[in-house]
Amino acid sequence: MNIQLALDRMTIPEAIQLTHVVREHIDWIEVGTSLIKEFGMESVQKLKEAFPEKIIVADMKTMDNATYEFEMCFHAGADVATVMGVAPHVSIETCMEAASKMNKKVMIDLLGTTNEQINALAVYKDAIFCAHVSKDQQELTGKRNQSLNLPSKLLNDSSLELAAAGGITIDSLKDFKDACLSVAIVGSAITKADDPAAAACAFKEVITTIKGEKML
Amino acid sequence: MNIQLALDRMTIPEAIQLTHVVREHIDWIEVGTSLIKEFGMESVQKLKEAFPEKIIVADMKTMDNATYEFEMCFHAGADVATVMGVAPHVSIETCMEAASKMNKKVMIDLLGTTNEQINALAVYKDAIFCAHVSKDQQELTGKRNQSLNLPSKLLNDSSLELAAAGGITIDSLKDFKDACLSVAIVGSAITKADDPAAAACAFKEVITTIKGEKML
Repeated sequence: MNIQLALDRMTIPEAIQLTHVVREHIDWIEVGTSLIKEFGMESVQKLKEAFPEKIIVADMKTMDNATYEFEMCFHAGADVATVMGVAPHVSIETCMEAASKMNKKVMIDLLGTTNEQINALAVYKDAIFCAHVSKDQQELTGKRNQSLNLPSKLLNDSSLELAAAGGITIDSLKDFKDACLSVAIVGSAITKADDPAAAACAFKEVITTIKGEKML
Repeated sequence: MNIQLALDRMTIPEAIQLTHVVREHIDWIEVGTSLIKEFGMESVQKLKEAFPEKIIVADMKTMDNATYEFEMCFHAGADVATVMGVAPHVSIETCMEAASKMNKKVMIDLLGTTNEQINALAVYKDAIFCAHVSKDQQELTGKRNQSLNLPSKLLNDSSLELAAAGGITIDSLKDFKDACLSVAIVGSAITKADDPAAAACAFKEVITTIKGEKML
């Protein structure tokens, strides 16, 4: 399981500084949608320059104009880009093609999708499927992502890569231990911690423990 | 009916230059999603600075983080911002509140919504509802927006403001003459015309004719 550090609602220098502090404990770096919309592709470019050894995820949340948006962020240095599962199929298909051509990866954000839509998306075997409780859902309803609430078609297909995002804490991460989660996306539990390095380290320890238990 | 000029897949100076050429024939200026994701809020700010008399629409396509994204683009100079109709309801509600507080306007992009979702959205009486055939749907399937394919709940409510986007041409604009369309969103039919000023002028003439016919 990889930890994807989600960077949102901050400047590019703040994002770089914070990532430096936690870099040894995290695996992937997500340039959040708020950074992309506030600062453009410079946000992706600067994070890749600062951390060339890390996987950079551009949280594009693409709904349309798929080739342009995906090529733009891959050229800026992203290794993975997100498309919304609620986007028209033709856009998701185009994202898959753009990523394949450039040897990059697509993460399909399942926010707002129905089970029927998710089942239809399961054909994209090379994508990462992200079960997502949004910031607004967390802040305004108190809801958090505490289990992989996904159709069995996805959960039981061990060939698919799954990710989870939305208010994940060290405690809630343990709830995912039985799911084959490839990526745990963590934002404020690290970025807003009093000691971000200690928080990130604690996440890494939980993952190492889960891995150890699975090997027994 | 207002013409909203959609600016996409170009640099900020190109967007400003093109808008100067057509400014007398268009009403609203849309800073397209591609400009926002490529250049950030600077795109909104520069367009508002160059055309302070025009309504600036920031095509944010918000899916989450609604307060942050909407305040950010309104502070940058936007008068209207878009949220996706497929976003969680809590986010759309939050966009409506953020806009109301700042005396701005929300456009709800209906791309990918079901009739059931659209009917539920009709409670947002202050929003503009945008029937949208996406770029990818146009380019890859040849589909264009040729009629307001919306549930009767929206079409028959004269208190609601409606917009249409997606491959609108001078000919197809005439198909909308019976619909009470507040905003016709036009992109490449103006921006990629050999003579953008002449194309924008022709759109304006069609609208003036439609208005005239309605007054008879």
